[in-house]
Amino acid sequence: MYPMGGSNFTIVLIFLSFLTFILVEAQKVHHPLDPLTPFELNQIKTLVTNSHQNATFHYVGLDEPSKHKVLSWSLQNRPNERLNPRRAFVIVRVDSKSREILIDLSKNLILSDKVYRGNGYPTLNFEEQTLAGELPLTYAPFMDSIAKRGLNISEVLCQAFTIGWYGEKNTKRVVRVMCYYMDGTINFYMRPIEGVMTTVDLDEMRIVDYRDRLIVPMAKAHGTDYRESKQNPPFDTGIKAMTILQQDGPSFSLDGNHVRWANWQFHLGFDMRAGPIISLASIYDHDKDRYRRVMYKGYISELFVPYQDMTEEWYFRTYLDAGEYAFGICAVPLEPSKDCPKNAKFLDVYYTTGDGTPAKIPRAFCVFERYAGDVMWRHTEAAVPGDTVEVRPDVTLVVRMVSTVANYDYTIDWEFKQSGSIKATVSLSEFLHLRGRYTHTSQIKEEIYGTLLAENVIGTRHDHFLSFHLDLDIDGVANSLMKTHLQTVRVTDESSPRKSYWKVVNEVAKTESDAKIRFSGAGPEIVVVNPNKQTKVGNDFGYRLIPGSAATPLLLEDDYAQIRGAFSNYNVWVTPYNKSEKWAGGVYVDQSHGDDTLAKWTLRNREIENKDIVLWHTMGFHHVPLQEDYPIMPTISGAFELRPANFFEHNPVLKVKSPKPVKWVNCSAKLN
Amino acid sequence: MYPMGGSNFTIVLIFLSFLTFILVEAQKVHHPLDPLTPFELNQIKTLVTNSHQNATFHYVGLDEPSKHKVLSWSLQNRPNERLNPRRAFVIVRVDSKSREILIDLSKNLILSDKVYRGNGYPTLNFEEQTLAGELPLTYAPFMDSIAKRGLNISEVLCQAFTIGWYGEKNTKRVVRVMCYYMDGTINFYMRPIEGVMTTVDLDEMRIVDYRDRLIVPMAKAHGTDYRESKQNPPFDTGIKAMTILQQDGPSFSLDGNHVRWANWQFHLGFDMRAGPIISLASIYDHDKDRYRRVMYKGYISELFVPYQDMTEEWYFRTYLDAGEYAFGICAVPLEPSKDCPKNAKFLDVYYTTGDGTPAKIPRAFCVFERYAGDVMWRHTEAAVPGDTVEVRPDVTLVVRMVSTVANYDYTIDWEFKQSGSIKATVSLSEFLHLRGRYTHTSQIKEEIYGTLLAENVIGTRHDHFLSFHLDLDIDGVANSLMKTHLQTVRVTDESSPRKSYWKVVNEVAKTESDAKIRFSGAGPEIVVVNPNKQTKVGNDFGYRLIPGSAATPLLLEDDYAQIRGAFSNYNVWVTPYNKSEKWAGGVYVDQSHGDDTLAKWTLRNREIENKDIVLWHTMGFHHVPLQEDYPIMPTISGAFELRPANFFEHNPVLKVKSPKPVKWVNCSAKLN
Repeated sequence: MYPMGGSNFTIVLIFLSFLTFILVEAQKVHHPLDPLTPFELNQIKTLVTNSHQNATFHYVGLDEPSKHKVLSWSLQNRPNERLNPRRAFVIVRVDSKSREILIDLSKNLILSDKVYRGNGYPTLNFEEQTLAGELPLTYAPFMDSIAKRGLNISEVLCQAFTIGWYGEKNTKRVVRVMCYYMDGTINFYMRPIEGVMTTVDLDEMRIVDYRDRLIVPMAKAHGTDYRESKQNPPFDTGIKAMTILQQDGPSFSLDGNHVRWANWQFHLGFDMRAGPIISLASIYDHDKDRYRRVMYKGYISELFVPYQDMTEEWYFRTYLDAGEYAFGICAVPLEPSKDCPKNAKFLDVYYTTGDGTPAKIPRAFCVFERYAGDVMWRHTEAAVPGDTVEVRPDVTLVVRMVSTVANYDYTIDWEFKQSGSIKATVSLSEFLHLRGRYTHTSQIKEEIYGTLLAENVIGTRHDHFLSFHLDLDIDGVANSLMKTHLQTVRVTDESSPRKSYWKVVNEVAKTESDAKIRFSGAGPEIVVVNPNKQTKVGNDFGYRLIPGSAATPLLLEDDYAQIRGAFSNYNVWVTPYNKSEKWAGGVYVDQSHGDDTLAKWTLRNREIENKDIVLWHTMGFHHVPLQEDYPIMPTISGAFELRPANFFEHNPVLKVKSPKPVKWVNCSAKLN
Repeated sequence: MYPMGGSNFTIVLIFLSFLTFILVEAQKVHHPLDPLTPFELNQIKTLVTNSHQNATFHYVGLDEPSKHKVLSWSLQNRPNERLNPRRAFVIVRVDSKSREILIDLSKNLILSDKVYRGNGYPTLNFEEQTLAGELPLTYAPFMDSIAKRGLNISEVLCQAFTIGWYGEKNTKRVVRVMCYYMDGTINFYMRPIEGVMTTVDLDEMRIVDYRDRLIVPMAKAHGTDYRESKQNPPFDTGIKAMTILQQDGPSFSLDGNHVRWANWQFHLGFDMRAGPIISLASIYDHDKDRYRRVMYKGYISELFVPYQDMTEEWYFRTYLDAGEYAFGICAVPLEPSKDCPKNAKFLDVYYTTGDGTPAKIPRAFCVFERYAGDVMWRHTEAAVPGDTVEVRPDVTLVVRMVSTVANYDYTIDWEFKQSGSIKATVSLSEFLHLRGRYTHTSQIKEEIYGTLLAENVIGTRHDHFLSFHLDLDIDGVANSLMKTHLQTVRVTDESSPRKSYWKVVNEVAKTESDAKIRFSGAGPEIVVVNPNKQTKVGNDFGYRLIPGSAATPLLLEDDYAQIRGAFSNYNVWVTPYNKSEKWAGGVYVDQSHGDDTLAKWTLRNREIENKDIVLWHTMGFHHVPLQEDYPIMPTISGAFELRPANFFEHNPVLKVKSPKPVKWVNCSAKLN
């Protein structure tokens, strides 16, 4: 008997299996744009912590191969051939300095490692936000403040908020910690402990400033809980059971992160800051018998949420959600049959936590076919004999993520239409940030910067701006931006009984300045064209941007907050493609000075005609709070659409067949 | 045996039953806003034709009781008590004159009957359009023109088009008849026989002018047929079977034309010109334990579709679709499972044809619950211990009509949301009006007023403007229009590190002039408030208009077409309620001089503050045709939303329960 030997042998076997697993995993073929795997994230942790034992992680993302390489790889259509090298870009804090580390994952080595010496700080990680939020709870002056207000410290919870920048030359990496009273509610933001503000140095993780300026009446807990289990009757009239059925399964396929559906194919990536990234979106053209690229890459580059309250505890709330809080890792697990319909498929994502350990967000994305009862095209012909009625219902494909950045739940939908459109919809359900003080509007004589929503509850005015990075490639990389002006023409020569009509004046943007556009009711229409490729009758291939929620900026352009969120100065910007210009608010956004923004890049006024260009679209919402938004706001949505404009020779969905009507038999419903 | 007697007895019995039926039908209780029944339409025919044997019918509609009476009736909540008298308003042509006839249906008599002596003519009926369209086909000069072009007259079909008005003092009731070549296509509009124009006097029903100005190359038939049966492979990638199931049936109820669903109730009427009319829309408020009125009436008052081509055969195409063609009777039978989802219920409507006979449009409306996979509100709470996730899927109720006005299919949706919003969506699927001449853009040196879409096919630029009559009653009839301006404030006193913020400046419109608003990117926000009723904390009850497709006018304001379609001068107008001000383009729209329009009424500049007011919203589309629009355009949509703004004390859907997830068992699918 060789019990020990056998045991050792088993251990060796396990070890060998593990090695094999590691090798297989490391060699596993990736789409070059696939997000970093848990294996790779662990690899990164090991490499970085071997170099810097005390590193805290703030960003780990794929350092993509050049666009040129990715396109070549994609054209070769050899999905099993891995595109090397595979690289990662890492931002850590070590000894109160930000370091940028570039890693070759294929070779398992650090390529470069340098200190970042510019303005601003990296995205906060969850762990330091939690630690900072806990500091006041054991801080004597804060405990005194709570006692002075007759509150119970065990019911207090705090949260760290980024502070922006207001022209200071030197900054420290600090946050403001604001606290809330949880007694009687789960609704975090409903009972702010106003007048009290704690400043925490994140690198030292200690309180560096504390203020208790004034006592404000506390909002009531009553009516703020939003949980179903805490509601009392009467309930709203119920809607009967309703569901979407796809007996034969979905019509799309997921091959890793590669999505194929109807005439579309694209890659669905994930990034800690951006969330979902749509890449290589191409549409099949029957006439040309090939896929034609529409978008090399599309993602949310930055968000800007400035509040409009000038008081001491409020003025600094000018958040850049992607760069400060990492919009992507704020993704929450989607609830099946609620966040996404029953016919949805879900995808998990992985990211790096503060100490470098990978974490999973289960069901961070869902993909589903959407049928809202709408019609793709139709006609009933009355003038021609015969009963001609042709109707094609509209089924689309949706990719969804919900990112909960503290009090906001942003739902991001990328929707693909068979007719060639890509539509992005942003839906907001939120808790308002609140202040106290009044019980009736008749008492208000000063500017309260918001709406009185309930007793001692003021909902503060604010904006949401989102910058979409849209690297369109309209059937090729060299594109131009066409501004289509609809111009009134006065008929003066009596050639017509009409006195006027409108004509179309097309203007190609030559440089970045020409492409800074603020939408008004009068247009212009914006089309990205490929000036090198035309339809048979000679129209440039194009895609039109149809804005749906193009809010204009209201802050002064030289205000510090606006300098940092300067992407919101215009609804449209165009830049020549530059791999390093990814984040419209800069790489280091926390307390940035606005020196690495879309607005700054475009000051170079580079040429953009017939180049590989990126379209940046700013959409937004001005939010004047309403009582209906309390204690949680019903969803509001904004969207834009990229719609083919002489991209196809003719209607691309003319040949889409009518769906066969489905009859379900022998069905019985069971409530789970 | 009394065979004869028995037989006579039977006849008498049948006759008596018939009388009883008539009496019962006549006495049947109607909601005072119910559309006229077939019985009533027959009654009207008999009464009118007894007076005027040669009358042709152009409009028959309910002459509603006064708003005051309807509201009293509604408040009494005695639905079985009929509100008398029930009246109809009729427009007929007799001896080349328009007559207005008012009928008391309860007493079965004509109350008044007078000749209309103003400008303009009533809506065309289908029958005269058909007759006019047939005239060229047997008209020798036209037949010569066809022969000269080498075309086959048996393949020619023609259609009558209204001609507008261009400053002439005297007009005749004429239409232009334009013809199309059907050889090889079912697509009526694809092969226009350009350069040929026939003018027909509708009263005399004869050709009064004929022109053959030039020969233009004929567009090809190839590729224009849109019928599924005529398409050749390859077909687009199929979407697998997908359907919506409501095992326990819909959650709404239809009691005649009265609709109840979730927290909403409203009346769904029908009018020959307007199509669907939503009346008495009220929402149940749990806090107040009563229904609160939001909208007394909402409908499409007029449409304006000016083309932008100045050539002889085109300049006059400046259609006002509701007043000229009767938008309501252009409703087409909806296709189950295609135009509306499987869970829809359908309603028939009735109208009066040219000779007075009632006709039915089966399935003119559908009503269905819509679940598009969207979320009504949600939150995932990360900061508070415990896994709090609350998500409420958004189910809404849709009322739909499709009106096919010649080449356009307009889908009209009125959508009710549990959160209190009413959303109106207009979707367009169309055939373009086309001209010929060029085969490549490089040949074009002149203004062609459109886009070259295929060989010898030019799609002509045009607009669509729709005027929605929105008689809002925000919890009472006396309302005001509030303009909410978001104004930038420069901080000059160093009271804050910020340099700017925005504040809200509310301005109440005192008179009609104050309420003429053209939307731009900079607002203002528009809220209809009830200044007499406030929330507990003192905010006026209100509903906000959120525009989604507020196109601005591009024609000169003094252009004749624009004078007739002057409602499109502004996106918002407000008038004091006036029962006679129903049609934004006037009652007699065909060749109108623009003397009975919204623009004219508001010149009186009446007071509108704290009055029973009507909000008129103009939405629109500027259409620069694209190759994708050929041979039929994929649907484009525009919408606006009426959203509660401090109407409720708090989020009205807080208490909506999560749907129970449904599991369908033992299902098998059968393709019908």
